[in-house]
Amino acid sequence: MEVFKVIKIKAGAKEAADDLVVEEVPFTLNIGDKELVTLLCMPADLEDLAAGFLFTSGLIRKIEDIKKIVINREQWVAYIELAVADTEMVFKRLYTSGCGRGTLFYSAADLINRVKNVSDFKIEAVKISSLMADFQKKSEIYLKTGGAHSAALADNKGILIFKEDIGRHNAIDKVIGQRLREGGSFENKIMVTSGRISSEVLLKTQKCRIPVVVSKSAPTNQAIRLAKDMGVTLAGFTRGNRLNIYSAEERID
Amino acid sequence: MEVFKVIKIKAGAKEAADDLVVEEVPFTLNIGDKELVTLLCMPADLEDLAAGFLFTSGLIRKIEDIKKIVINREQWVAYIELAVADTEMVFKRLYTSGCGRGTLFYSAADLINRVKNVSDFKIEAVKISSLMADFQKKSEIYLKTGGAHSAALADNKGILIFKEDIGRHNAIDKVIGQRLREGGSFENKIMVTSGRISSEVLLKTQKCRIPVVVSKSAPTNQAIRLAKDMGVTLAGFTRGNRLNIYSAEERID
Repeated sequence: MEVFKVIKIKAGAKEAADDLVVEEVPFTLNIGDKELVTLLCMPADLEDLAAGFLFTSGLIRKIEDIKKIVINREQWVAYIELAVADTEMVFKRLYTSGCGRGTLFYSAADLINRVKNVSDFKIEAVKISSLMADFQKKSEIYLKTGGAHSAALADNKGILIFKEDIGRHNAIDKVIGQRLREGGSFENKIMVTSGRISSEVLLKTQKCRIPVVVSKSAPTNQAIRLAKDMGVTLAGFTRGNRLNIYSAEERID
Repeated sequence: MEVFKVIKIKAGAKEAADDLVVEEVPFTLNIGDKELVTLLCMPADLEDLAAGFLFTSGLIRKIEDIKKIVINREQWVAYIELAVADTEMVFKRLYTSGCGRGTLFYSAADLINRVKNVSDFKIEAVKISSLMADFQKKSEIYLKTGGAHSAALADNKGILIFKEDIGRHNAIDKVIGQRLREGGSFENKIMVTSGRISSEVLLKTQKCRIPVVVSKSAPTNQAIRLAKDMGVTLAGFTRGNRLNIYSAEERID
């Protein structure tokens, strides 16, 4: 966070004040000597972000495909070595299917990944509400700056991994990246997010076979369709003791 | 908007209900016979989105660079003909500087665009607050689904163009695209947005030389730095009769 001098106006009265603002850096991922992508993100957990992005974008199939990540924190560059024979394919995959604010899952490779989520994991609605309450208390940067999204991996007992970022996709990639790097599983887990649920978000969580996705915000129609297709439990508008269940409600008691 | 059957849970009680959900489509821009990018967006104002995206991403310099946009509304594809001699350059520019959720302004071409905004436009703080109130009333899809961002171009008298989308960048691109296509100017105008202000947002508005940017939400540190550098007035947390001014406060009375 960075402090800025601002003019606060309230009912016509001016006042100079200090304001805490969220940090943003352009973070470039290089595979070998080639630039893959630049993400705008908060400058924390960059190894997790790099690993999570590569995995959820479908550019690597498993964490072992990454041989090395070296981060240059002055220029905000990740130098990544992949244990993938054909790194050209990595570039091709990103350019053809996901460039811009793209839709990776509309590619053929990803259709294959849209298999049914058959987890028999169950969680009580009241437990989801209390998870969301804990989640919001942890959002330190959001509470101080109003400018961050958060994401968490949780199980029936509580939050396991919690991350914040200026982008809702980045926060989710950081959570997934850390979990992959520490070798943990996604079985019987819940992804909690502050952000809206688009098809992209659901694709990211389904890459990990996470059975339950819970958001404070709204889903899109495509996200609901995908969740139904894939058998993922999708809950939205989780606020106070309320929530909406859009798909696979059998996992919520 | 689309209606879905949902289970609403409130204080432990279950209830089946209908829920209005925002629509999302994958919208692909083709330049000639080559795919440029796929945007996830709401399926409205697609010509405006295509034109705005090409312009704010720096892929075209002026609206006249677009000879034709034909939209296929079954496959959500825009077939675009550019009056640009070297369309390969367009692809190169997107791939090298903006791929992913990228940072177009960190490229050399865009540094050149970071000239000072010298507009002597002025607006009263109370007028900004009433603009924001009008803006929020117009957010029909957000009010019904909770899943949309909005953006508007306004002047001292009120809102001129208003757009909604599932993405805050898309909403801004749609506003700019419509304005460009109708041949209007951005002089003495205000960009109003529901979303957070990152450097990308500020770069988009500065491509049009819009002197004042007003948000309901928070800015990032990079957005504030850019706004100061470029002499753009940046106001955030515009809620009720309050707002914060982060830069070039001389334009706000």
